[in-house]
Amino acid sequence: MEKIGWIGTGVMGRSMCMHILNKRYPVSLYNRTKGQADDLCRQGAVWCDNPGEVAARNDIIFTMVGEPSDVEQVIMGKEGVLECIRPGSVIVDMTTSEPSLSRRIEKEAKGKSVLSLDAPVSGGDVGAREGTLAIMVGGDKDAFQRVLPIFKLMGKNIARMGGPGMGQHTKMSNQILIASTMIGVVESLLYAHRAGLDQESVIDVIGKGAAASWAINQLGPRIVKGNFAPGFAIRHFIKDMGIALLEARRMKLSLPGLALANQFYTAAMAEGLEAEGTQALYKVLDRMNRP
Amino acid sequence: MEKIGWIGTGVMGRSMCMHILNKRYPVSLYNRTKGQADDLCRQGAVWCDNPGEVAARNDIIFTMVGEPSDVEQVIMGKEGVLECIRPGSVIVDMTTSEPSLSRRIEKEAKGKSVLSLDAPVSGGDVGAREGTLAIMVGGDKDAFQRVLPIFKLMGKNIARMGGPGMGQHTKMSNQILIASTMIGVVESLLYAHRAGLDQESVIDVIGKGAAASWAINQLGPRIVKGNFAPGFAIRHFIKDMGIALLEARRMKLSLPGLALANQFYTAAMAEGLEAEGTQALYKVLDRMNRP
Repeated sequence: MEKIGWIGTGVMGRSMCMHILNKRYPVSLYNRTKGQADDLCRQGAVWCDNPGEVAARNDIIFTMVGEPSDVEQVIMGKEGVLECIRPGSVIVDMTTSEPSLSRRIEKEAKGKSVLSLDAPVSGGDVGAREGTLAIMVGGDKDAFQRVLPIFKLMGKNIARMGGPGMGQHTKMSNQILIASTMIGVVESLLYAHRAGLDQESVIDVIGKGAAASWAINQLGPRIVKGNFAPGFAIRHFIKDMGIALLEARRMKLSLPGLALANQFYTAAMAEGLEAEGTQALYKVLDRMNRP
Repeated sequence: MEKIGWIGTGVMGRSMCMHILNKRYPVSLYNRTKGQADDLCRQGAVWCDNPGEVAARNDIIFTMVGEPSDVEQVIMGKEGVLECIRPGSVIVDMTTSEPSLSRRIEKEAKGKSVLSLDAPVSGGDVGAREGTLAIMVGGDKDAFQRVLPIFKLMGKNIARMGGPGMGQHTKMSNQILIASTMIGVVESLLYAHRAGLDQESVIDVIGKGAAASWAINQLGPRIVKGNFAPGFAIRHFIKDMGIALLEARRMKLSLPGLALANQFYTAAMAEGLEAEGTQALYKVLDRMNRP
């Protein structure tokens, strides 16, 4: 049985790692805030004092941290994964991060006879808890096959999209699609409200045909009820859009819809909405259009 | 049995009217281009020389024409519906048109003891042919109940959304939602392509979760195959967005995403793409990002 290392036990990482523990894999782990790993340690996971120690003890090392800079630090930094990892191991970064960083990690890892995968997810905290995440994987085919049984504990819709960075690029495509769709959702519902329509009835009618989307049908009703709790928090979406815009610029690719969404969500941050769900964009548009 | 008048036998109107004829309602009709009514006349519809004549002979008069200016002309113009209509009749405008025009028609009609409904549809030529349109209705409750059996011949998802103009406003909410969703679709797919991903595989992964929409799952694969044939033609979408922007301005409502989509589709018109489907927006973004 592969020995599993896990770095990053926030809301997502904790649930994902728990599925592995539940199948009795030996797991050792590290997290910046120790308290967030308590559940997992009670279930038998072994605490390590730094990412390097996690790497030294295990065969497959997962990272699920915050920003690309965090990924860089835990993998390539002092007392990091690459400093201590053994040849033949696999690094799997499941953080939504920069495709170019994934490629850099892959190269450095190869120099130590280590394979690496980028494997960002979508499906949020619910998907993590229920083991129904979509997992978009980039990197070596054999490494993918080796890690696949473990991916299957965390997700349902698992696809290898190509070489290193391609998982991240797929996640960016996902976020770019969501960005403009969200603008459509909030503009449509605000227009409906201002026109005097019952928003719920409008969703019932327009949510079934050519305008249908997960966002209008799942987040629309929350907007109508004034429920702005995260599903997916604005501060995380802002991070992802930042990566997408950066990568697009590197490709010399102009994406005006993404840029507009990014500005809107920046306004949401300015209004202190960073911990609310992406549907709280409605508040920004609403306030923008008041006397 | 109600006597049915039908004005406007283009691609949509012809299919819609045919469903009524097929149920053996007596139908008389008018169209600007007579040849487009030939099928219907062969099936027993009676030709009239102008909209007023259609109105004079019938109980429920449907209009399904092009622009709001066409609606105004056939209903309020010389030899128009209102000039000749009998008290107790109902006017049903199924054109996607201006909510404010629907309210004006309702007022004028009331002065002649005539009721009116605005009842724009979505579902395109396929929905019209198969009788599966969504029909969004504004206007008097009793008039709605009286026309409902005939709506049911043309559509499946039929809802009265409120008083006069509210059907049009609902259609505008639908189009506003589609506008930004389409930007998301084409930006996402172009990003994927430029990143070196297989677009079809990307749609498979991102089309199932929080980024899912009718547009990515139905129009996305057409973009990948280079199929830009209309479903819904750009020139019609441009018309609808123009109405939405006009109404939004009347409400003092700023909708930046809609405005951006409108500019993009205007660029599509500039490139001569007006007869292609809305998914041809992909070509605009693609060309914009080439050396």
